[in-house]
Amino acid sequence: MRRKIILDLDTGIDDALALAYALGSPELEIIGVTGTYGNVAVDTGVRNALAILELFGRTDVPVHAGLPCARECDSFEVLEISEFIHGANGIGGAQLPEPTTAAAEGDAVEFLVESVRKYGDELVIVPTGPSTTIAAAIEADSSFAENARIIMMGGALTVPGNVRPWAEANVHQDPEATDLLFRRARDVTMVGLDVTLQTLLTTRETAVWRSLGTRGGTFLADAADHYIRAYETTSPHLGGCGLHDPLAVAVAVDPGLVEFLHLNLKVDTHGETRGRTIADETRLNDPVKTARVAALVDVERFLAEFMGRLTALAEKTPAA
Amino acid sequence: MRRKIILDLDTGIDDALALAYALGSPELEIIGVTGTYGNVAVDTGVRNALAILELFGRTDVPVHAGLPCARECDSFEVLEISEFIHGANGIGGAQLPEPTTAAAEGDAVEFLVESVRKYGDELVIVPTGPSTTIAAAIEADSSFAENARIIMMGGALTVPGNVRPWAEANVHQDPEATDLLFRRARDVTMVGLDVTLQTLLTTRETAVWRSLGTRGGTFLADAADHYIRAYETTSPHLGGCGLHDPLAVAVAVDPGLVEFLHLNLKVDTHGETRGRTIADETRLNDPVKTARVAALVDVERFLAEFMGRLTALAEKTPAA
Repeated sequence: MRRKIILDLDTGIDDALALAYALGSPELEIIGVTGTYGNVAVDTGVRNALAILELFGRTDVPVHAGLPCARECDSFEVLEISEFIHGANGIGGAQLPEPTTAAAEGDAVEFLVESVRKYGDELVIVPTGPSTTIAAAIEADSSFAENARIIMMGGALTVPGNVRPWAEANVHQDPEATDLLFRRARDVTMVGLDVTLQTLLTTRETAVWRSLGTRGGTFLADAADHYIRAYETTSPHLGGCGLHDPLAVAVAVDPGLVEFLHLNLKVDTHGETRGRTIADETRLNDPVKTARVAALVDVERFLAEFMGRLTALAEKTPAA
Repeated sequence: MRRKIILDLDTGIDDALALAYALGSPELEIIGVTGTYGNVAVDTGVRNALAILELFGRTDVPVHAGLPCARECDSFEVLEISEFIHGANGIGGAQLPEPTTAAAEGDAVEFLVESVRKYGDELVIVPTGPSTTIAAAIEADSSFAENARIIMMGGALTVPGNVRPWAEANVHQDPEATDLLFRRARDVTMVGLDVTLQTLLTTRETAVWRSLGTRGGTFLADAADHYIRAYETTSPHLGGCGLHDPLAVAVAVDPGLVEFLHLNLKVDTHGETRGRTIADETRLNDPVKTARVAALVDVERFLAEFMGRLTALAEKTPAA
């Protein structure tokens, strides 16, 4: 039986690659996408998700718009660094036709709550942006926190953050939301910078996509090349771009790609380290651990899976 | 063959328990103690170490005084919190006769450098205070960093610190020294708050020592009871005191008590998170990892070893 999945994306370049990974994974049944803000505004992210689904012939997948800004904010503006990394259109300037489909009716929170009620632990939710919409679902329905299986891209436990020395970008956007998620949800997997800065993509790989000569291959190569160039500026020591969001989807397909630390997490919401993900000291010796943090990753195997799945997906699209 | 060990102690209550653990471990040959500042001033720590060695009949173990304060400081004063936790005399007000022996001639740095030259990797060095003296040994002799095997108590990778939300006490005292240690030493094991806040001692255990009716048993019970009372104030959620320093010695005897993350470490020496131990992002994908961080601990087995060894040691001392 295929595993049901909902992707909660702020579509962004690595979100696009994560969506492509899911589309290229026969193990998964994508029952929907929810759109959050972060790399881009919600509207841009939803538009990008719809356009990518259409590119890969999957206009059947509904996209629900989620909350437009953090719990403690009234509005959202894309950070300068996000725009630098993901480009003004969020997909690195790569050109896709305006989608012919529109966002689905019904908001993302309701869709998430209903889906967990309906599918229980046959469903996995993979958020790759700020936790705002997921936190709203937790507050909307008490059974959501109990029953939702969440594999999130976000946080940094053993490594420095990427927007502050202690904070990763997704958690930094809405620390209160991720803190609520960590304290209330019963089954959270954190795929953070600890592992995603080890899974690097270079222009060697994107050249493979470009050489396919298909619309899908050109799109993936254009978007990822922008991302790789941005990383050359922001993180020259890495020698590639981090495959953050795709790794979370890959872990949803095969948890064996990573090794976990089991612990109880919190987010610092006050003081100098606001936005830091760290163990909750008050639950340090609680035998029940609600989170598992990916601490080691099989880089080689993940990259092989990633390239295999995305290349096969891109091959099937029309000639560019 | 017994493993040679040097303990670098700021003796302190849990340093006293660590020294007792080493004295009670037939697997170890204690070739010396070096004294650092931290929980107490160097002089107090050296005096305590000498008095404890005498209590347990081991005046043959030399104690060398180390550096008196951090690399970037001119002087050292015991922090109010250290005095609260360890008592004015550093051993929780427990009374020991003034030692009849004196500190050994030759300073600690020279002793450390010479010992590593002589014994190579037959020797393990267990620092349980600030890294100042060890860092000085690294700078004094280029072969020290290459050949020393160091198992340090200090740092906090996955859990909050204990003197700042991001900083553990030993590292906080001299961040530059621990940073130098992490960047230069080739074989560092970090036994930090990640595991030591899970290994808790309570008055149930100290009552066993007190009931022995020996001088050693009374000393261990008096000192540890003070420590447990301090923890009731500072960390009431734990329900006991953390056996920080003894766990580092236990890992020197049997690394199988813990499970490790292998990575390259640094200490933040600037900015808001000064004193934080975290992965060095510039060496994140370096296949050579110079540190292993204890991330999981077999609490039950460690506590059994700890009680067995210290109780047997205390039994052999004269009646109180």
